[in-house]
Amino acid sequence: MEAIKNTDKGRSKTEKISDSTIQRISIYYRTLNRLEKQAVKRTTSMSLADIEGISPVMVRKDLSFFGTFGCRGVGYDVQSLKRELAKILGFSRKWGLVIIGGGQFGNVLINSQTLKDNNFTIRKIFDKEPDLIKDIDDQTVVYPLDQLEEKINPEEDHIAIIALPPPEVQSVIDRLGKIGMKAVLYMASRSIKAPQNMVVMNQDISIKLGMMTYKVLEKENNRTA
Amino acid sequence: MEAIKNTDKGRSKTEKISDSTIQRISIYYRTLNRLEKQAVKRTTSMSLADIEGISPVMVRKDLSFFGTFGCRGVGYDVQSLKRELAKILGFSRKWGLVIIGGGQFGNVLINSQTLKDNNFTIRKIFDKEPDLIKDIDDQTVVYPLDQLEEKINPEEDHIAIIALPPPEVQSVIDRLGKIGMKAVLYMASRSIKAPQNMVVMNQDISIKLGMMTYKVLEKENNRTA
Repeated sequence: MEAIKNTDKGRSKTEKISDSTIQRISIYYRTLNRLEKQAVKRTTSMSLADIEGISPVMVRKDLSFFGTFGCRGVGYDVQSLKRELAKILGFSRKWGLVIIGGGQFGNVLINSQTLKDNNFTIRKIFDKEPDLIKDIDDQTVVYPLDQLEEKINPEEDHIAIIALPPPEVQSVIDRLGKIGMKAVLYMASRSIKAPQNMVVMNQDISIKLGMMTYKVLEKENNRTA
Repeated sequence: MEAIKNTDKGRSKTEKISDSTIQRISIYYRTLNRLEKQAVKRTTSMSLADIEGISPVMVRKDLSFFGTFGCRGVGYDVQSLKRELAKILGFSRKWGLVIIGGGQFGNVLINSQTLKDNNFTIRKIFDKEPDLIKDIDDQTVVYPLDQLEEKINPEEDHIAIIALPPPEVQSVIDRLGKIGMKAVLYMASRSIKAPQNMVVMNQDISIKLGMMTYKVLEKENNRTA
């Protein structure tokens, strides 16, 4: 991951942008989105650093990878910074989503207001029992799981979210790889082998809980040390 | 976050351990857990690096923060490495969970096999309509949301997972702070102010999707560059 970094003195160098930076850029975007809805016009790196573990210095450093935003002492214009971050993250265009697995977790996704707020459209849902999927939006069509290859068009169905039980995930990812799917997010607690050229990410609550228990122990140890 | 790093030469120095390392340690643990279930006895840094973006070198570096495991050319003993990582992450003890919000997402958590696999016990569920929560395990008790302060005991209810709509999260976290809750994971797409001494983490699908769309754009740009 590389970007041109423009410093105050006009120097520019190629620098690696870490996943952590991109994750924080997403968090700043989320905050700017809320501020805009609240009709707030200007903000500061202090307000953007409003989640534990992020400092104003980190905000300014993260943003500096992508250019010069805001003015010292004046802060950032909410609307224009939001627009710039949207461009960086790709939120300035529309993304077609496909949900694979319409069970309990799939349903949480199907009803997610968060997805609708961020230029994502759920275009297709695949499930073994398509007749059981109810209450979907007009722009969404439900298909049987075995029609995956036939119905998905990677040119307009950009990202697949897999909400299937762990043992079923790998074979579905392999099938999606064969039809040239570009991006897959899966929710199961399992590592998978990703086909080449596919962006694959995993959202697994057990990984997050492992980080939490580590941090709780660390705090305990610091207290007793 | 600090730990003593023991190098091959017996030097030791205090080094900061990043969130990314802890996250990957959780991923290695997950893989070791699966290998153990499959009765695999030995493994290598190559097999542990089986998720996109992790290299064998990174596996060895991450593990080296915590001590010397395995032997060059021989690999790691699955059971003993799993036991060591469990100790690091805190999975060698039992953790009591509390779920706040028993709606669609809360229900996914209540039924999660992943949680049961990792020494977590859901002890209590709080909801505005406790009578609607069905099919729970014997060790779990359901209470009305307004009894939060009265029923939670932070000494045995170690981690609260909040599955409430975004506008309701901050006030619940404030209430949990007042009774000395040590750790909270919330699922809403919103930044919150964390009370002092509380470990607060967020699992928000829109943040993950922001990282995905960034990576998809980056691949497209590399192709056209």
